[in-house]
Amino acid sequence: MAIPIELDHASRQSLQGQIFEQLRHLILGGRLKPGTLVPASRVLAEQLGISRNTVLLVYDRLIAEGYLQARKAIGTYVNLELPETCLAATRRIATSASTHTETAKRPMIPFVGPTPAKRNTQHLDFDFYPDRIDLDLFPLKIWRRFINRTFTSTVTHFTECCDPGGLPQLREVIADHLGIARGISVSADQIIITGGSQEGLNLAARLLVKDGTLVATEDPCYQGAASLFESYYAKLIPIPVDEDGLDVEQLPRDGVTLIYVTPSHQYPLGFTLPMERRLKLLDWARRCGAYIIEDDYDSDFRYRGSPLTALMGLDDHGCVMYLGTFSKSMGAGLRLGYLVVPKALIPAARSAKALLNNGHAWLDQATMAEFIRSGAYGNHLRRMRNIYSKRHDCLIDALREHFGAVQLSGLESGLHLAWHLPHNYPDASELQTLALRQGVGIYSIGSGTTSDFGKGSYSTRTVVLGFSSLNEYQIRAGIRRLAHAFTDLPVESVRSGLGAHAGLSSSLHYKNTGY
Amino acid sequence: MAIPIELDHASRQSLQGQIFEQLRHLILGGRLKPGTLVPASRVLAEQLGISRNTVLLVYDRLIAEGYLQARKAIGTYVNLELPETCLAATRRIATSASTHTETAKRPMIPFVGPTPAKRNTQHLDFDFYPDRIDLDLFPLKIWRRFINRTFTSTVTHFTECCDPGGLPQLREVIADHLGIARGISVSADQIIITGGSQEGLNLAARLLVKDGTLVATEDPCYQGAASLFESYYAKLIPIPVDEDGLDVEQLPRDGVTLIYVTPSHQYPLGFTLPMERRLKLLDWARRCGAYIIEDDYDSDFRYRGSPLTALMGLDDHGCVMYLGTFSKSMGAGLRLGYLVVPKALIPAARSAKALLNNGHAWLDQATMAEFIRSGAYGNHLRRMRNIYSKRHDCLIDALREHFGAVQLSGLESGLHLAWHLPHNYPDASELQTLALRQGVGIYSIGSGTTSDFGKGSYSTRTVVLGFSSLNEYQIRAGIRRLAHAFTDLPVESVRSGLGAHAGLSSSLHYKNTGY
Repeated sequence: MAIPIELDHASRQSLQGQIFEQLRHLILGGRLKPGTLVPASRVLAEQLGISRNTVLLVYDRLIAEGYLQARKAIGTYVNLELPETCLAATRRIATSASTHTETAKRPMIPFVGPTPAKRNTQHLDFDFYPDRIDLDLFPLKIWRRFINRTFTSTVTHFTECCDPGGLPQLREVIADHLGIARGISVSADQIIITGGSQEGLNLAARLLVKDGTLVATEDPCYQGAASLFESYYAKLIPIPVDEDGLDVEQLPRDGVTLIYVTPSHQYPLGFTLPMERRLKLLDWARRCGAYIIEDDYDSDFRYRGSPLTALMGLDDHGCVMYLGTFSKSMGAGLRLGYLVVPKALIPAARSAKALLNNGHAWLDQATMAEFIRSGAYGNHLRRMRNIYSKRHDCLIDALREHFGAVQLSGLESGLHLAWHLPHNYPDASELQTLALRQGVGIYSIGSGTTSDFGKGSYSTRTVVLGFSSLNEYQIRAGIRRLAHAFTDLPVESVRSGLGAHAGLSSSLHYKNTGY
Repeated sequence: MAIPIELDHASRQSLQGQIFEQLRHLILGGRLKPGTLVPASRVLAEQLGISRNTVLLVYDRLIAEGYLQARKAIGTYVNLELPETCLAATRRIATSASTHTETAKRPMIPFVGPTPAKRNTQHLDFDFYPDRIDLDLFPLKIWRRFINRTFTSTVTHFTECCDPGGLPQLREVIADHLGIARGISVSADQIIITGGSQEGLNLAARLLVKDGTLVATEDPCYQGAASLFESYYAKLIPIPVDEDGLDVEQLPRDGVTLIYVTPSHQYPLGFTLPMERRLKLLDWARRCGAYIIEDDYDSDFRYRGSPLTALMGLDDHGCVMYLGTFSKSMGAGLRLGYLVVPKALIPAARSAKALLNNGHAWLDQATMAEFIRSGAYGNHLRRMRNIYSKRHDCLIDALREHFGAVQLSGLESGLHLAWHLPHNYPDASELQTLALRQGVGIYSIGSGTTSDFGKGSYSTRTVVLGFSSLNEYQIRAGIRRLAHAFTDLPVESVRSGLGAHAGLSSSLHYKNTGY
């Protein structure tokens, strides 16, 4: 008897797996009936042109699962006592085409979240995407050397989970760093090492947010935060942002459990929250018993003046959680960040992290700890600051060269700035589309990684430009092409608006240079 | 004027940070009043015996934050227009001793979870802890070689997040592996790479569990799962386990959203769920619209016969999620695992993972992908299987040698087994205490990493012994010492119980060998 088995040698499934699956289906589908002898392994092997051992392994497995039985002098046959439920499965196999109908009966899952997650995967000639850094600036050789050094350290910890809060030596050097760089005085045990700041946010949300919790955010704000809180069924309360950042006067009197803020460099508008507002915000939080999440995502890069002390450094009442990340200074592909919690929340935060993923991978933590301790991280930061400072200045120069007296914000620090459009320009989303056609990525508020609640004027009149993934040459060429794109606008007012500045002639010049 | 600043040169906080903090406190505390001139930088530097530059940096920062002002020909003085809220902060600083009282006013956080997380950090001479593997067996050199190879690959991805579902090439080799090893036919996009199986569990819980959701678990079951579901306010329904694993007849008729099971090797009792029960469980899930989480935590290690096809391999209705981990085969310190979801749940699972931590670190994924693809992982698994098989046999031999015809379960696979105590022995927890006194770790159900709901006889009469972190020599010595510990029991019946076997003489012999 030749059994109807077809092998696909190009398939990624093993031959053994293919034969097993097909025999199982033939049995469950009733095409190989109980008692039927299956071919001797040698025969089936010849039929299929494969090794006899492969067939033996398949038969062994089918015997183990009760599909086949083997008896000396008789051979191998389909089990007479195929379990009843096995036969019931026949119908399922036979009707497997109706799988999707059956699945539809399953109740809706309660999870809510953006689907699919927004990602910028477009390949543009010049992409001023605000959430990307330069691959070429990753300290590849140094990082590799530190990883190898970690491998040769006296003790390795590949086989056991670390402390759920993170590797002690990494938390200690981070605590030192925060004291010096951000004026935050914390002990190492307040620090929880996380897979990037998103995981830190998730930890904070796990601690504080449940169905119906009131969470205040800046408007506009980082989308990854807004979506996360909503996925825990929080009710969001957007608080407007003006040129001094969060407008603390507009905070509700009471009822808010948590507020998420970016005081160093408001995301996405770039404003720095002044000291007076910081203190007012802390007073408000103390009065109404709210917690503050301070997302300090890009404070490592400051170009003008000293940084203001972080909210957590000013907090005397244990209401601030501080989110830090190595995604901007090193790279998001490392997935390394941390959440600093008030002392009273240490046990809960450790427990939440243990339930989340039992702590962070050892090698990355040990390597980063030594990288910081040795001073290599400080050197790397200085190098990055120097490079990004030049790109920052270059972008401002290029914008001024092509668009005149541009109104910008977020210039003191960070890796992006915001351009507030003159009144005679079209809306930001139109400009974004126009630029895209010319291979240039610029981002209106509400696109990219921003959540916009549509209440502020920034919604339509502001464009975000990141400069950390483009070199100075690319920045200049990108802005030149942007100016060129805008000359194609059918809107007369814009053209005259551009003409009023030095933009047009440069963009014409650009045509001749062949970009 | 000498300013009362005291520097602690042994402190981990920088001198700059210490001076800044102390000056800020003096100002906010009213001890340096508005208008007061602070010493010239040179003078303060001399007073403190530090470089003038350090003082200048501190002054710059205090000026930037509005605490100080500088005017030519006058000098640097405490800001006359110290913001009102700054002064309000005075009271906070002055009363900072009462911080804890104030914190107590903050509302209770809604998060519930075991606090602090249970961890086995005891250092015993012989620890049969079931959740630990042998550090010396980690393929350190090979793994290092593969990491270095990943560094020199043509493209590195340190600076950007991967796909939230995971690195495509890793998901593909895992899909292949599952087809061959577990009879599961899935596409790579059904696989979500996670930070160990705990993160996979957390993802599944995020998708399906909210306040009041009914979640069935085995009784007893893995504590990390039970605590996780409870932390999402699930209502747990423990289903008893008998010698064939989960007793499917005792499943509730309806209302359950999710059931968490370990069919390959019940955790902690080690039973394998037979094919008939597997099919009944699937039928039940289909009928009542429940999802199944299949935790296949140690199925890589099978010592007798072929493995049964995984539940997910038998599922035709998209109701099974499969949890895999590299914690047992490689090491928990890698924090690498995966969750396989039914096709209908792919978008939600990707979204939940993106909100959780924006995907997994690149280097670990790329290295593991190549490690598997090259065949090195297969070789490593074979080597581990061989070693653990010997330790497994050694443990059984040692138990029989010292305790006679012991009743064991979970022998077909995995890295631990369960010992069901004879009726004349004290309860498991008493034996555990007794063993501990002699430096031997054995674990009753409900201790270690097990949640026990107290309904089954296993609660008091079963002991769990892991053998993956001890070599054969240690296993023999550990069981010998265990037998010795039991001879000290004040319970006559036990001594005679032991005496009935060959135990006593060996344990006496043990005394002479000096362990």
